[in-house]
Amino acid sequence: MSLVPPIEYDDASPQVRAVYDDIMATRKVPSVNNFWKVLAHDPPTLRRIWSNIKEVMGPGTIDPLTKEMLYVAVSASNGCRYCIASHGAAARKHGMTEAQYSELLAIVGLANETNRLVTALDVAVDAKFL
Amino acid sequence: MSLVPPIEYDDASPQVRAVYDDIMATRKVPSVNNFWKVLAHDPPTLRRIWSNIKEVMGPGTIDPLTKEMLYVAVSASNGCRYCIASHGAAARKHGMTEAQYSELLAIVGLANETNRLVTALDVAVDAKFL
Amino acid sequence: MSLVPPIEYDDASPQVRAVYDDIMATRKVPSVNNFWKVLAHDPPTLRRIWSNIKEVMGPGTIDPLTKEMLYVAVSASNGCRYCIASHGAAARKHGMTEAQYSELLAIVGLANETNRLVTALDVAVDAKFL
Amino acid sequence: MSLVPPIEYDDASPQVRAVYDDIMATRKVPSVNNFWKVLAHDPPTLRRIWSNIKEVMGPGTIDPLTKEMLYVAVSASNGCRYCIASHGAAARKHGMTEAQYSELLAIVGLANETNRLVTALDVAVDAKFL
Amino acid sequence: MSLVPPIEYDDASPQVRAVYDDIMATRKVPSVNNFWKVLAHDPPTLRRIWSNIKEVMGPGTIDPLTKEMLYVAVSASNGCRYCIASHGAAARKHGMTEAQYSELLAIVGLANETNRLVTALDVAVDAKFL
Amino acid sequence: MSLVPPIEYDDASPQVRAVYDDIMATRKVPSVNNFWKVLAHDPPTLRRIWSNIKEVMGPGTIDPLTKEMLYVAVSASNGCRYCIASHGAAARKHGMTEAQYSELLAIVGLANETNRLVTALDVAVDAKFL
Repeated sequence: MSLVPPIEYDDASPQVRAVYDDIMATRKVPSVNNFWKVLAHDPPTLRRIWSNIKEVMGPGTIDPLTKEMLYVAVSASNGCRYCIASHGAAARKHGMTEAQYSELLAIVGLANETNRLVTALDVAVDAKFL
Repeated sequence: MSLVPPIEYDDASPQVRAVYDDIMATRKVPSVNNFWKVLAHDPPTLRRIWSNIKEVMGPGTIDPLTKEMLYVAVSASNGCRYCIASHGAAARKHGMTEAQYSELLAIVGLANETNRLVTALDVAVDAKFL
Repeated sequence: MSLVPPIEYDDASPQVRAVYDDIMATRKVPSVNNFWKVLAHDPPTLRRIWSNIKEVMGPGTIDPLTKEMLYVAVSASNGCRYCIASHGAAARKHGMTEAQYSELLAIVGLANETNRLVTALDVAVDAKFL
Repeated sequence: MSLVPPIEYDDASPQVRAVYDDIMATRKVPSVNNFWKVLAHDPPTLRRIWSNIKEVMGPGTIDPLTKEMLYVAVSASNGCRYCIASHGAAARKHGMTEAQYSELLAIVGLANETNRLVTALDVAVDAKFL
Repeated sequence: MSLVPPIEYDDASPQVRAVYDDIMATRKVPSVNNFWKVLAHDPPTLRRIWSNIKEVMGPGTIDPLTKEMLYVAVSASNGCRYCIASHGAAARKHGMTEAQYSELLAIVGLANETNRLVTALDVAVDAKFL
Repeated sequence: MSLVPPIEYDDASPQVRAVYDDIMATRKVPSVNNFWKVLAHDPPTLRRIWSNIKEVMGPGTIDPLTKEMLYVAVSASNGCRYCIASHGAAARKHGMTEAQYSELLAIVGLANETNRLVTALDVAVDAKFL
């Protein structure tokens, strides 16, 4: 429940500030999002989740825009408003256009449709895919 | 249930063959996957779903590789084995490497984790995202 | 896990047999499905779930065919193979045709698609629906 | 996000108005719901989704009331408030009583319960259903 | 939709009051939660669901605190705000600390992550678990 | 897809062996489960997920048995067979009885039922829980 108020930088412990500082430095932003401010009530989880996000969403073999679009797609499929908003903003910062966002949502919708048809019909995996 | 056997091209009605032909021509492949052969028991749905897939996954503002990766991500999140296999194969045909697939799955897993944390903690959307 | 073998009538306790007997009498069938035989390892749950199914799926204001179709639709949406098979069989016994089953699955697929679009786009409920 | 304001008829492009007109004519209603007004930002998706809904929810072998009840059941299972409200209203227009709606929700709840029990217990499909 | 206003004790039928009375007596509380007041529009479902909750959440082989924590975990995984709030309150009444709640959410998040990885990778169950 | 064969210890790179060694030492077991052997194709994910599991499932304010039961409950709710089997085995090692497992599943089923009822009915959170 939103019993949990965000912890602002000025009210944060040194341990929490260290994570906030790393988020701001890594992302080159002047403040951290509410997600981190709420997670901050549990500093080990704050540190652990940030460490995971930093590694998984950091430089790799998939470009940053595609990574954020994948995150948005899963979040849209799961119905997480906050995650759609925050990762949608990140994707736009990396260049996602509104036309691309519309296409992304169309794919999310269609995949959810065909996922159910395939599962309900119990379609056997084609031999060539095994 | 897999009561529903695939309908092979030779056994298909002209209406169904027309869809199979369009799938093969559009995708430049010599045969259609089991999904279509099972859907073929219901020709209107076969035609309708193919029409949707053709439009949504066809040329647009997101490149074909990214489109397939988004499809795989949603299917992996939903646990549709067949869809992971078939769209995973399509993504690989468009150039997805195994390293990229691993990164994709890591994003799917992490998004599912943070989607639940965000929802359970009822994090308010940051004003700048509204 | 399928560590749990079905408990056949001959091996069942009197308490379990009483539930099996009631299922067979209520449904006018000569045996019970695997679901009940597996649940039978936990007699209180067997009794409780049967009592719920008997009440919810029994006579009411929705006809028996529609009730089974609703059960199939939710099960198809959730990807429960067993439930699709068993409630699909029940629906067919009550008269569901294959054409109706195809339409049912088309609705399940489409609802899953539009549910995600609506949620992702955060569409406000129309005033007239409030 | 609800960054996306509904597009009213007077502000819509001819392409979008044509879809609105078809929705109003098909459903014999004086205006379209918010879902369509939000989708209208992406005219191809607006046209495509309407075309799907029109076909799947139009005349077939399942009566209109049952079709809407199936849509409501999936939407209730998936937790899509908007879809429950709008398809619930459509079902009521086709004659769904409050008693029937209560029964529908009871089935949705129970199916979600038994779907999990069946899946967790990995119940084998009865031979007669294969 | 929240078309459904809560039914207060003073406005309830004798049949509904009997359930309210049993809830209050069983739980030693002076009033019932909104969930019951909304379910009360459908007295058979009110009675049936309370009977299930009373049996499943009552004395057994799992202690009351753990039972409530399991309920919260499933509800957090499914994103049911109300259920997280009400069963979270019940768990706290039985002694759940904020540190334990944080650990519970961390487990929910992580299980959702690894559930997807396992399913997407189609990991075979180890022989020793069969 | 199960294209991905498990990587056995003898075939593993030093980097992967180091993780396997830590898993075996931490859990005091002579080998690692298939999940780790499949994840091993992506060493950074293997290391990252193990690090998360080790931290979240390690000593804390919730006892080890309850932690495993929470993991099983979420996995049962999500329908991850492998996770139910492996974390179920871990829970049994920590003392979970079959009677407790039955109660756990009953809670998972019931929570899934009431989660849908609450969400579909859009029950307002009681003031005392805010």
